[in-house]
Amino acid sequence: MHEECGVFGVYDLDGGDVSGTIYYGLMSLQHRGQESAGIAVSDTNGEKCKVRFFKDMGLVNEVFTQENMSNLRGDIGVGHVRYSTAGASSRENAGPLTINYVKGTLALSHNGNLTNADELREHLSLTGAIFQTTIDSEVIAYLIARERLKTGSVEEAVSLAMKELKGAYSLVIMSPRKLIGARDPYGFRPLVLGKKKNAYIFASETCALDMAGAEYIRDVEPGEIVTVTQDGQILSDRSGCIEKKKQGHCIFEYIYFARPDSTLDGISVYDARMKAGAFLYEDSPVEADIVAGVPESGNIAALGFSKRSGIPYSQVLFKNSYVGRTFIKPAQTEREMGVTVKLGALKHAVEGKRVVLIDDSIVRGTTSFKIVKMLKDAGAREVHMRVSSPPFLWPCFFGTDVPGRKELIAFNRSLEEIRNIVGADTLAYLKENRLSELVDGRLSICEGCFTGKYPEEVKGFEC
Amino acid sequence: MHEECGVFGVYDLDGGDVSGTIYYGLMSLQHRGQESAGIAVSDTNGEKCKVRFFKDMGLVNEVFTQENMSNLRGDIGVGHVRYSTAGASSRENAGPLTINYVKGTLALSHNGNLTNADELREHLSLTGAIFQTTIDSEVIAYLIARERLKTGSVEEAVSLAMKELKGAYSLVIMSPRKLIGARDPYGFRPLVLGKKKNAYIFASETCALDMAGAEYIRDVEPGEIVTVTQDGQILSDRSGCIEKKKQGHCIFEYIYFARPDSTLDGISVYDARMKAGAFLYEDSPVEADIVAGVPESGNIAALGFSKRSGIPYSQVLFKNSYVGRTFIKPAQTEREMGVTVKLGALKHAVEGKRVVLIDDSIVRGTTSFKIVKMLKDAGAREVHMRVSSPPFLWPCFFGTDVPGRKELIAFNRSLEEIRNIVGADTLAYLKENRLSELVDGRLSICEGCFTGKYPEEVKGFEC
Amino acid sequence: MHEECGVFGVYDLDGGDVSGTIYYGLMSLQHRGQESAGIAVSDTNGEKCKVRFFKDMGLVNEVFTQENMSNLRGDIGVGHVRYSTAGASSRENAGPLTINYVKGTLALSHNGNLTNADELREHLSLTGAIFQTTIDSEVIAYLIARERLKTGSVEEAVSLAMKELKGAYSLVIMSPRKLIGARDPYGFRPLVLGKKKNAYIFASETCALDMAGAEYIRDVEPGEIVTVTQDGQILSDRSGCIEKKKQGHCIFEYIYFARPDSTLDGISVYDARMKAGAFLYEDSPVEADIVAGVPESGNIAALGFSKRSGIPYSQVLFKNSYVGRTFIKPAQTEREMGVTVKLGALKHAVEGKRVVLIDDSIVRGTTSFKIVKMLKDAGAREVHMRVSSPPFLWPCFFGTDVPGRKELIAFNRSLEEIRNIVGADTLAYLKENRLSELVDGRLSICEGCFTGKYPEEVKGFEC
Amino acid sequence: MHEECGVFGVYDLDGGDVSGTIYYGLMSLQHRGQESAGIAVSDTNGEKCKVRFFKDMGLVNEVFTQENMSNLRGDIGVGHVRYSTAGASSRENAGPLTINYVKGTLALSHNGNLTNADELREHLSLTGAIFQTTIDSEVIAYLIARERLKTGSVEEAVSLAMKELKGAYSLVIMSPRKLIGARDPYGFRPLVLGKKKNAYIFASETCALDMAGAEYIRDVEPGEIVTVTQDGQILSDRSGCIEKKKQGHCIFEYIYFARPDSTLDGISVYDARMKAGAFLYEDSPVEADIVAGVPESGNIAALGFSKRSGIPYSQVLFKNSYVGRTFIKPAQTEREMGVTVKLGALKHAVEGKRVVLIDDSIVRGTTSFKIVKMLKDAGAREVHMRVSSPPFLWPCFFGTDVPGRKELIAFNRSLEEIRNIVGADTLAYLKENRLSELVDGRLSICEGCFTGKYPEEVKGFEC
Repeated sequence: MHEECGVFGVYDLDGGDVSGTIYYGLMSLQHRGQESAGIAVSDTNGEKCKVRFFKDMGLVNEVFTQENMSNLRGDIGVGHVRYSTAGASSRENAGPLTINYVKGTLALSHNGNLTNADELREHLSLTGAIFQTTIDSEVIAYLIARERLKTGSVEEAVSLAMKELKGAYSLVIMSPRKLIGARDPYGFRPLVLGKKKNAYIFASETCALDMAGAEYIRDVEPGEIVTVTQDGQILSDRSGCIEKKKQGHCIFEYIYFARPDSTLDGISVYDARMKAGAFLYEDSPVEADIVAGVPESGNIAALGFSKRSGIPYSQVLFKNSYVGRTFIKPAQTEREMGVTVKLGALKHAVEGKRVVLIDDSIVRGTTSFKIVKMLKDAGAREVHMRVSSPPFLWPCFFGTDVPGRKELIAFNRSLEEIRNIVGADTLAYLKENRLSELVDGRLSICEGCFTGKYPEEVKGFEC
Repeated sequence: MHEECGVFGVYDLDGGDVSGTIYYGLMSLQHRGQESAGIAVSDTNGEKCKVRFFKDMGLVNEVFTQENMSNLRGDIGVGHVRYSTAGASSRENAGPLTINYVKGTLALSHNGNLTNADELREHLSLTGAIFQTTIDSEVIAYLIARERLKTGSVEEAVSLAMKELKGAYSLVIMSPRKLIGARDPYGFRPLVLGKKKNAYIFASETCALDMAGAEYIRDVEPGEIVTVTQDGQILSDRSGCIEKKKQGHCIFEYIYFARPDSTLDGISVYDARMKAGAFLYEDSPVEADIVAGVPESGNIAALGFSKRSGIPYSQVLFKNSYVGRTFIKPAQTEREMGVTVKLGALKHAVEGKRVVLIDDSIVRGTTSFKIVKMLKDAGAREVHMRVSSPPFLWPCFFGTDVPGRKELIAFNRSLEEIRNIVGADTLAYLKENRLSELVDGRLSICEGCFTGKYPEEVKGFEC
Repeated sequence: MHEECGVFGVYDLDGGDVSGTIYYGLMSLQHRGQESAGIAVSDTNGEKCKVRFFKDMGLVNEVFTQENMSNLRGDIGVGHVRYSTAGASSRENAGPLTINYVKGTLALSHNGNLTNADELREHLSLTGAIFQTTIDSEVIAYLIARERLKTGSVEEAVSLAMKELKGAYSLVIMSPRKLIGARDPYGFRPLVLGKKKNAYIFASETCALDMAGAEYIRDVEPGEIVTVTQDGQILSDRSGCIEKKKQGHCIFEYIYFARPDSTLDGISVYDARMKAGAFLYEDSPVEADIVAGVPESGNIAALGFSKRSGIPYSQVLFKNSYVGRTFIKPAQTEREMGVTVKLGALKHAVEGKRVVLIDDSIVRGTTSFKIVKMLKDAGAREVHMRVSSPPFLWPCFFGTDVPGRKELIAFNRSLEEIRNIVGADTLAYLKENRLSELVDGRLSICEGCFTGKYPEEVKGFEC
Repeated sequence: MHEECGVFGVYDLDGGDVSGTIYYGLMSLQHRGQESAGIAVSDTNGEKCKVRFFKDMGLVNEVFTQENMSNLRGDIGVGHVRYSTAGASSRENAGPLTINYVKGTLALSHNGNLTNADELREHLSLTGAIFQTTIDSEVIAYLIARERLKTGSVEEAVSLAMKELKGAYSLVIMSPRKLIGARDPYGFRPLVLGKKKNAYIFASETCALDMAGAEYIRDVEPGEIVTVTQDGQILSDRSGCIEKKKQGHCIFEYIYFARPDSTLDGISVYDARMKAGAFLYEDSPVEADIVAGVPESGNIAALGFSKRSGIPYSQVLFKNSYVGRTFIKPAQTEREMGVTVKLGALKHAVEGKRVVLIDDSIVRGTTSFKIVKMLKDAGAREVHMRVSSPPFLWPCFFGTDVPGRKELIAFNRSLEEIRNIVGADTLAYLKENRLSELVDGRLSICEGCFTGKYPEEVKGFEC
């Protein structure tokens, strides 16, 4: 399961260089996309259309060097980290997208997924547009450029463009002298606003503000456009907002994507996961000696389970943090090494024990099978699997890379069948009705990947 | 002095894979651009809009590997080698440009320089266009995409687009099922058509046809659009052609840019250089013991001088062919090492001799100074420098990277002053009136960089 | 604090290729050395002296590629991962060391540190030896080569060589048809023997056996030489063993170096850490709301503390696992970013809480200061630091890279002074008398870095 | 045909940094070895045993960067470029070899090939030596280290060691405070001494002195040891010299290996090649329209042929200097592209002409075949091949990489058979009796690869 992007933007009204802040900000958002990274900066007091940027495939610390960073000086800038399924040649698709248009330069970072991108591309093509990438950012940039011809400001152009967009988008846009943060009306993906001295920051998550040493101001509201101007004004355009109860905050951000030290739309990710663990015990209790998480994403729910149940929390797996993202797999016959390369069972922690094992989700089930087997081989008497989300059953149209239905273990299988495949003694998922409780019922959520019900109509889709 | 690009395209009507042919073709055109290289291919019998491409900074043999070539399979494709002055981040500007537009996909390789690119960009911007690069190819692609909406075929769109273009362009364009070669009305840059079995090839020079084992058919005419269709027709649209005597074939292609084993617009580059050498003797004779060229570009003119004068040809400099394009220069105090790293004087060839030294051009004069000094230090009694082109005095607007006037040694200096700086005993340039004789008077040439007279009016320029 | 090496060796008596097994084994030992990695293999049925090897700076997954692994085929081999303080040019020092000598080829992997290497080098020099590296392996190889001249077998030569060695060494040696594991008499560094089908494996830790799918047979005893012969015999030479109570197993292996899923000399690393946590509570109790570890090395001791004290275990820091070993630090003024790049405080977990924070050690104190501050900034009411080892006060001569005394925070400072620097509300270390309890008193340990008392006399050192 | 090495050493008695001089020197010797390059430097006024070095696979400009050069500061140093047939893992074999021994440090660069290396290795092994490389330098270093124990100076140790060496060696050796140049008694490989201000330089060829801006002093004599001491003495030990007429200067250095701007042992390489061309005409005249060389190594002999015969010199092939050493060969069916990628025929120069084509040698004949065919295809009426060396028939034991006899086109074939394979109209080689004339009979030469007669007896070889 992959998130598609993290976005970051900063405008230092005091004129300080922002490239370092973007660099650190992207590092803290790296969990949102590990395929490519990019930074674009500009000098608002310098040449109007001079944007310097660098982007490439790889992690932030792989892409940026002393050398290429030294060319990235400016007091305004945006950054992007991206995940995609395309291969090496998708370097073209790395963000942020930087364009020249009638009013100078725009750089744009996008998190989310448009549901009408194809229609928009076709429509634009019919008026002579050409496309050099396959990313939504290009469509959005086109619309803004076109609307800009009719309006007096870039933020109005963004507003007009947003009326044509469907689907999920959290945007950070740099124009020659303005920094803009905007979010789709449903609020699928998060976007926060912060401040450090006289510098304003937009970021996907609050952890990026903490990293930058900035204070959190507020979340950009779903449907809102926030514009930071050169004279220090923070303009808000809420004309695109819809009723709060129609919004659709992605619940999986809280369950898995976001960093647990982030707070999104007023809800702590940590709290949500603690609750998920507690609910799992309440709804599917079990007698056991210890409770543990699949590192590292299952740990907090495991702590919540432990706290609620009184069953001691333990660590049962060792995670090899030196294994990089990519490594060769020499022996064909040892194909299943994949999981054991990254994990080792703490035999002395599990021997003879009844273990509750918490994971954030089960997608295909292969990893869960291996981990359960590893614990049993290490001497666990029983392994009770608890999953801090409901089963995945439907596609996500809004920025998450869910495999096809046929690859999903829960598709067309009973709970007992899944339990049998995974090899656990018992198995339980988070109940669907618990999802909105994770955010205290304070947010309207999108839970489409679990239930098939999406806040926005998706053309041609029927649950 | 740098050429800006080399272009190549091939369509195998028998369906064979063309990527290898493009690779070899680009190697043979490497002298036309050493900064970046790219290949885009498509399968005319496969998915309509599926173009595979790879491009990066570097020489052809640096950019392409077994791995990335293995992804480039197709029966139609274009390639590009490019020179530019921009830095590492100009990866975005590497060719060929590949776009999606209303009718599918276009890939475009361009050699030359538009003189109205800025106006076209501005005009396009005013209708909502966005630009992601700073290369002319993007402007051309836009125009084609727009014109395509109004016409029934891509070649008609190319024809309409060409009516808006000013300046120099030799184009090779791949549409889903057609390969197109086109040339500006003045014919500044070369473009030839060849055939190998049932595969048609466009290339900047005939040497690329030889490399591919293809036979030369003819040159694309200035102003002509040649279209190779899926059913094997070779369509010619000459509506853009102008009077032959108004054309402006770049004479410096013959003097320096093109490979001596190429024949362009019916004129052998080798012959032109032999003639330049002969003219140098006829117009500026000198008594000497040997005549030699500055390797390697001066060698053929030196042979021509030798043949005409009867003075024996010799080799006086050793060229270190192992020195790459880039190397560090450890000692600041040895800055002048630059030329001696690449060249060594053949003392025993020059000792006590009166040497006629032929170079193709003198730009800033620093290299010439060093070489003359090297020969004198090696014992040459006299060094008579002969230059197989007139002095550079004016800018080129049509695809050659001439330094600013103030850097040109000939600007505001008498012949005697130049001779004195270079340190030669005598110095003579090719006479301007000889330029058209290099091509037997059979072609109308552009000699603007020498005389300031350009075949096409250049906005705001006055000689 | 850095370990210096991990060693691995395997001999498949059935003739299967062992390179993949070594690769995976080294991955599981990566925590013991991250600077360089190497593999040497041989074919016992092929050419006698043909050893294939590859080694380079970097992590295992960085050093080895499909391409260089494809050259490493053999049924016997050794591997090495190494940490060193030297720079890029220390590629020469990467292991394993491969030599040719009178009886063919030897490849040697070494973990530990000789205390008489300089004397041995000098002595060897005086008989004409030359040295190409600065690693102990070279000295050991020389001694073996010399002793081999006097004896009938390589294992006897190893035995004779060991009589001259002082200090710490766990060795895995590959001769043309034997695989040898050996350990210094004190047993400073671990070495285990395992078996998978008909393949015998030596490795620094049992986690490497688990990774390989091999079963644990036993530890190589301190002072013992174990030889696996071509006909499947497992020879043991215990002539170098000393009294068990004189041994000196490095206690820091249990506290920090080794993986918690390993069992060394019969003692589970996990158990030792759980005990350390329990002892910390018993000896230095404190009232608190939660107990947490500094990820990831402090986590198990924290679980032990929690279990013994009844104070709930929690997670208070988020570790950014995407941050690589190296990254640039753009802004000079944000030097202190180092720790926050890798860690984030889970505000909602600590807000208003009294936190017991467990770390495995405090070296210079700078990281501890930052983490305590981060927790306080996140709202922790109190931070009580507990360290699962005594203060570092003395050098290690046996293979651990302890900084100089003046850099150690505990040197010449009272506990209160340290507490004040770190910023914690209370601070306590593991008591020295608890060290041997970590291993149940079943092993004689080396605790020199804490107490200055070493099992083997170190020339010129006085506590 | 490959040379095996180039050597360079410099000692600046004024204390200036020599790393840049070595770098440039190695660039000028790059033609002698293109597989690896290395530099080792030391500070004679600094720490006695501190040698800094860097070496790696690749060309000089590929191996050395600003970064690694910045670590190479010293007033004494040696450099090495190497050719070998081994693969990537031969990084261990790159020169110079740097060792620690009883008297500190030695760095050693070697050009040539020992004929008794195996015996010496065996003998050394029997006294306990270990070997980490397969290069002769290691054997030589061992012998020097051993002899050093018995004598009062490093140069005496070199002298004693040389008594044990058989075969070809030109050595440059750096001890902590001396720079030594030495040459085997036969003088197979060249070595010259030069001076620049107060810095003394040893180099394989004079072109490296020219590059360094140094003046030529003299050649190191065959069998001589020249020592530059810290107080500026130039010591000469000629005890190893033999009668001049027994010497064996490699004649192929003059014909092919050395740069034509070098003078070796008093004989200009340029002159030797001019003579070879003249002899070819005298001994094997032919009527023709033009004479040309296979670029670039055949050019000077072609000039000699032209001068002697009066047949005009011409250029008939274009060499693509942008093609790197390595490039992929996409299409299997275009395997024969190899030569045409690098060369193009100048059709207009050869059309209808009778061409004399001069090459320095024919090894397997495949390249010659392709070139002759290329010229014929380009319209040459006749192609008369003249080779400026006799046919290769025997192995070289002294530092040249000649293929096995069965791969040599001249082995067991008549001249007519070879001519037929190559496809030339006539074919002639340089006569064996002309070889010594190339050096005016002033040097005793080794012509073993042509005649099987070697100046030094080679064990087990019979002509």
